[in-house]
Amino acid sequence: MKKFMDESFMLTTNTAQVLYHNYAEKQKIIDYHCHINPKEIADDVTFENITQIWLGADHYKWRLMRAAGVSEEYITGNAPDYEKFLKYAQVLSYAVGNPLYHWSHLELKKYFNYSGVLSEKTAPEVWEITASKLKTGTMSAKQIIANSNVEAICTTDDPADSLEYHEKIENDKSFGVSVYPAWRPDRAINIENADFLDYIEKLSAVCSVKITGFEELCACLLNRMFFFNSKGCKTSDHGITDVPYSPAQKSEIEKIFEKRKQNAELSSDEIRKYKTAILLYLGEKYAKFGWVMQLHFGVKRNNNTAMYNKIGADTGFDCIGYYPVSNDLVNFMDALDTKGFLPKTILYSLNPTDNAYLDTVAGCFQGGIKGKIQHGSAWWFNDHKKGMYEHIENLASVGYLAGFVGMLTDSRSLLSYPRHDYFRRILCDFLGKAAESGEFPADIETLGKIAADISYNNTKEYFGFQIQKKNLDN
Amino acid sequence: MKKFMDESFMLTTNTAQVLYHNYAEKQKIIDYHCHINPKEIADDVTFENITQIWLGADHYKWRLMRAAGVSEEYITGNAPDYEKFLKYAQVLSYAVGNPLYHWSHLELKKYFNYSGVLSEKTAPEVWEITASKLKTGTMSAKQIIANSNVEAICTTDDPADSLEYHEKIENDKSFGVSVYPAWRPDRAINIENADFLDYIEKLSAVCSVKITGFEELCACLLNRMFFFNSKGCKTSDHGITDVPYSPAQKSEIEKIFEKRKQNAELSSDEIRKYKTAILLYLGEKYAKFGWVMQLHFGVKRNNNTAMYNKIGADTGFDCIGYYPVSNDLVNFMDALDTKGFLPKTILYSLNPTDNAYLDTVAGCFQGGIKGKIQHGSAWWFNDHKKGMYEHIENLASVGYLAGFVGMLTDSRSLLSYPRHDYFRRILCDFLGKAAESGEFPADIETLGKIAADISYNNTKEYFGFQIQKKNLDN
Amino acid sequence: MKKFMDESFMLTTNTAQVLYHNYAEKQKIIDYHCHINPKEIADDVTFENITQIWLGADHYKWRLMRAAGVSEEYITGNAPDYEKFLKYAQVLSYAVGNPLYHWSHLELKKYFNYSGVLSEKTAPEVWEITASKLKTGTMSAKQIIANSNVEAICTTDDPADSLEYHEKIENDKSFGVSVYPAWRPDRAINIENADFLDYIEKLSAVCSVKITGFEELCACLLNRMFFFNSKGCKTSDHGITDVPYSPAQKSEIEKIFEKRKQNAELSSDEIRKYKTAILLYLGEKYAKFGWVMQLHFGVKRNNNTAMYNKIGADTGFDCIGYYPVSNDLVNFMDALDTKGFLPKTILYSLNPTDNAYLDTVAGCFQGGIKGKIQHGSAWWFNDHKKGMYEHIENLASVGYLAGFVGMLTDSRSLLSYPRHDYFRRILCDFLGKAAESGEFPADIETLGKIAADISYNNTKEYFGFQIQKKNLDN
Repeated sequence: MKKFMDESFMLTTNTAQVLYHNYAEKQKIIDYHCHINPKEIADDVTFENITQIWLGADHYKWRLMRAAGVSEEYITGNAPDYEKFLKYAQVLSYAVGNPLYHWSHLELKKYFNYSGVLSEKTAPEVWEITASKLKTGTMSAKQIIANSNVEAICTTDDPADSLEYHEKIENDKSFGVSVYPAWRPDRAINIENADFLDYIEKLSAVCSVKITGFEELCACLLNRMFFFNSKGCKTSDHGITDVPYSPAQKSEIEKIFEKRKQNAELSSDEIRKYKTAILLYLGEKYAKFGWVMQLHFGVKRNNNTAMYNKIGADTGFDCIGYYPVSNDLVNFMDALDTKGFLPKTILYSLNPTDNAYLDTVAGCFQGGIKGKIQHGSAWWFNDHKKGMYEHIENLASVGYLAGFVGMLTDSRSLLSYPRHDYFRRILCDFLGKAAESGEFPADIETLGKIAADISYNNTKEYFGFQIQKKNLDN
Repeated sequence: MKKFMDESFMLTTNTAQVLYHNYAEKQKIIDYHCHINPKEIADDVTFENITQIWLGADHYKWRLMRAAGVSEEYITGNAPDYEKFLKYAQVLSYAVGNPLYHWSHLELKKYFNYSGVLSEKTAPEVWEITASKLKTGTMSAKQIIANSNVEAICTTDDPADSLEYHEKIENDKSFGVSVYPAWRPDRAINIENADFLDYIEKLSAVCSVKITGFEELCACLLNRMFFFNSKGCKTSDHGITDVPYSPAQKSEIEKIFEKRKQNAELSSDEIRKYKTAILLYLGEKYAKFGWVMQLHFGVKRNNNTAMYNKIGADTGFDCIGYYPVSNDLVNFMDALDTKGFLPKTILYSLNPTDNAYLDTVAGCFQGGIKGKIQHGSAWWFNDHKKGMYEHIENLASVGYLAGFVGMLTDSRSLLSYPRHDYFRRILCDFLGKAAESGEFPADIETLGKIAADISYNNTKEYFGFQIQKKNLDN
Repeated sequence: MKKFMDESFMLTTNTAQVLYHNYAEKQKIIDYHCHINPKEIADDVTFENITQIWLGADHYKWRLMRAAGVSEEYITGNAPDYEKFLKYAQVLSYAVGNPLYHWSHLELKKYFNYSGVLSEKTAPEVWEITASKLKTGTMSAKQIIANSNVEAICTTDDPADSLEYHEKIENDKSFGVSVYPAWRPDRAINIENADFLDYIEKLSAVCSVKITGFEELCACLLNRMFFFNSKGCKTSDHGITDVPYSPAQKSEIEKIFEKRKQNAELSSDEIRKYKTAILLYLGEKYAKFGWVMQLHFGVKRNNNTAMYNKIGADTGFDCIGYYPVSNDLVNFMDALDTKGFLPKTILYSLNPTDNAYLDTVAGCFQGGIKGKIQHGSAWWFNDHKKGMYEHIENLASVGYLAGFVGMLTDSRSLLSYPRHDYFRRILCDFLGKAAESGEFPADIETLGKIAADISYNNTKEYFGFQIQKKNLDN
């Protein structure tokens, strides 16, 4: 019997252990997609207790607690922080097979040096240990990141954002981690949303141009892309139900935009045409800037109306959505490719049944750049051992695993970097098994290069980060 | 090499063996969904030979025989019982990887004390052994159930049913197993069926009210629900192609009902609206009664017209159906939840590719009750080792396995209780691997509680059975 | 640690090794579906270097190279053969988990007696070794096939084909392998294609009948089927996006055909009706001839317009397609079955998520013939260890694995026969695990029969090959 989550956690062969400890573990982290608020970093926030830093905004944990029958008072409600933590400890101690079990214990170990097992019984002790640590003056946002082997972070930012916090972070010469903005123009794309026109107003103000039509909108977005690019942006990100492809004449798009401005209701066909047009415009620009286009799709959001009305979006009430993701996605990519402007692209579907599909789609648009079209790492509800393993196995079987750009946290939490360790362990275990089963040569150099490339080198090369370690004052 | 189907069958670690033998195996069985005819129990039927009890109504076995090329004469035709059994034995002996291989041998062992391997060669011997046993006067329906560690059974019953057999069983004070009705109102829902109006007539008679419209239908169904509830009913069950969500005004539903009464053909849109309305009505009532709502979907039935015309429904000619199950299901659940009357719900899809999807859907409506929304156990064509393992892994990874209500037989056969053992072994093997791989603490108490809860305690608590062991006369 | 790809490659238990070496390995190969050009065999072509024989037409390898970032010049472009090979060697040496890694090394071993590891470093040596071997006068098309343990091959042929090369091969009494035509009438079915009318002209010429309507087309096709049948054809094959079922009156089909003749654009509904009609016609004839109907669906082809314009079809730019494959497929099969003329059928979907679905569909139309409806072997992008294992596991769990007709190469390459070995190893590993885990009796005779049947006997029996070893001259 292996010890509980020791050094060889999830590394089931000797080769896997060597690969992890000698090649993967020590690689720096480039967290190329996350949802950390840059203001939190700029302000170098601190936390009073583990409930604040762990349970304050983590809807993964909230969902687990709800599934176990915990009432909302102890989740997003007014129960005292300690009682919330206690509930989580109770629930977690039975959550066999859930990634939160592993993430929570990896985080307790890495950040609080706690190697025990969290449960109702040990909760008081863990509460004390973590509270003490949080008071040592070594656990501010910047300190946590700096101590997590992180080289660079990409946040998720709206085109209208001033990026003032990125500038503030950049100007702090005592902080050695690069924090880049990432371009997420969802609000400009979701023409059907109630606040779309307000958003256009906001964009107009930022660009100092009255946006009266689609063309001006595009011009304003391009202006903002130049700005983002000047701040080191290397990637866009899109959260879309599905990738549309309903091409239309520019004049028709202008009419649709005008109709929306009049607050007339758009047909689903019109919405799809608008989204196609703006995504094609943006995709082409990404290619010209050399940015990566990240496409996240297959989600049905805010499914619990009662809870949405109470506590809003991103609170743990989303699920896999069924949409006609498939043939349109291919046609959309082909349209950009035919123009010669298909950017480097990462495809993420929330539905794990799309795994093989996405690997075959990627294979239709490769060439010239290592892994130009990527099948993104197991995302959100798939971000667990089974999901990662299946992603890796599919990618290896149908595509070229060695060209993979690897893991990202996709997280709101400052403590989530051990997910990179988690992924690297699973990757090394896959590679180790290939060697020890005689299905790949037991050539540590080759395997080690694959492990290191996927952990770090591919990411750096693919996104084109020229990461300069800033001169630190201290 | 492990011995063939010995005590540690499918228990690949020591921990798994301990968990199974010390925690799971001994738990009573609550078979909360099956298709046993209550009349068979009430009449305490007996069987002359193994063909009658094994092959008489089991379309799983029929399909296997057909796939192996056996002609229908030996399946549902007029061949002598012994020859049918012989054919089955021949086919089974090559059925590597099929759950029937395991179920058949578990049943031979448990009920006939036969530990050998069934094949063409051993068939004569097995025929004799089983025939002798069936003549001992210990193998009547009630005796089989009583000797199978069963505490309670839920049958599947039409709202118009008198439940006379349930009453007869209840009144037999020598039979210690509770047999509850379960509410399956498919015939009131399938408005497109040829016999719908006949069924409404039948319901009218049972309720002593002329059902002239949708409102009266609902009232009559509610009346029957009170009756079922008084007989200990704790759960409904629905067999639907997919869960619809096309809300409409009551007046429109009345018009659709009226149209149907005039024998006019309904559009698919009208059918969908009617089904949505009645399912919303029923769902709300289930919540009020505290019943569980079981939804079985994703089936395409009676696909072989020639055979359907010869031998009717439920004879082994169904398959996975592709329907737009997805977004409507979520919206249907949200509609009930928004009213505050989403009942405890178990979701079953016949398509195993819905596994992750259903786990994420369940996660959107949890809270307050442990595992309020359940992803039902691997169903029908998924009821095998691979299917169960995948169900468990998905549930553990995305949801809260420890809150799972576990196994049911879904069977017409009195000998199918070893499927609970089968499930419990797979469950314990999953838990054992988690511990022995160091991915979960090797804490037998915690793991044992999880195993026992899923095998029995969760079921009892979730359905709300207050099972009183009846005073037995003997 | 197991040695790299030694004799027990992928055979993880003793039982698996015994099954493979004593039962499966020695079985002759009946390659019942491939894309080898019969002219290549008839002309007994030879190759100058490994690039010509390996990389000249293999779009699997091309895709891998593109995914690794190799530019097209080294793939289908004008780079020298040696440089192309060197690029492939470089890429392959990191392609952990890709079936090409295994196939390439199996082929180097079997045909060139090279047991090393191909990489950038060993590429010069491998280039020399293979070039020498190709010059020995033992590596012509016929010699390769004859030395590959092949008993029979089915090519893929158009109804208008003269089958002259099959005749030429048959007349070569020094060549002991049977090469049968297979009937692939895609061009007569794809009425929407630009060259459809040209094709009808071509068929008219071959049949010496002016095809003026659907009825004449059918008559001409029937005429060609008699011809194919006389040349030993035992199977049809269809490459279709999805199996349609939109039945229509004959008169309507004639009108659609007439409309197409006038070059008017057909609606998608009309196209679907036409395809349904011709597939129903053909299916019935297949049943009468005793032919097998192979249906390959779920592909979206030629997705990269730029590359299609440069280098045409079948060059590595296809992917899994999403089509409403499902309920129509069942209804199509039922329509043939209801008439009493459902032929033996093999179902292949490119989407691995259809695995369980296809197994349940097959189960609806079985009977009388062992494995009458087959779930075809893991196809194309699924033709790897994971894909094969999942196919086998699903088939075993839901259907009757012992009746499976096994592997085919589906290949354009003369060196692809080791894929049969690859499959047989995976099959034996599956069987070995079942025995060694105690889930199936460790009865080598029974398991060996299953292994041999799936490797060879089932195929021969199912297709009805009466393979006469031709009297060889030498």
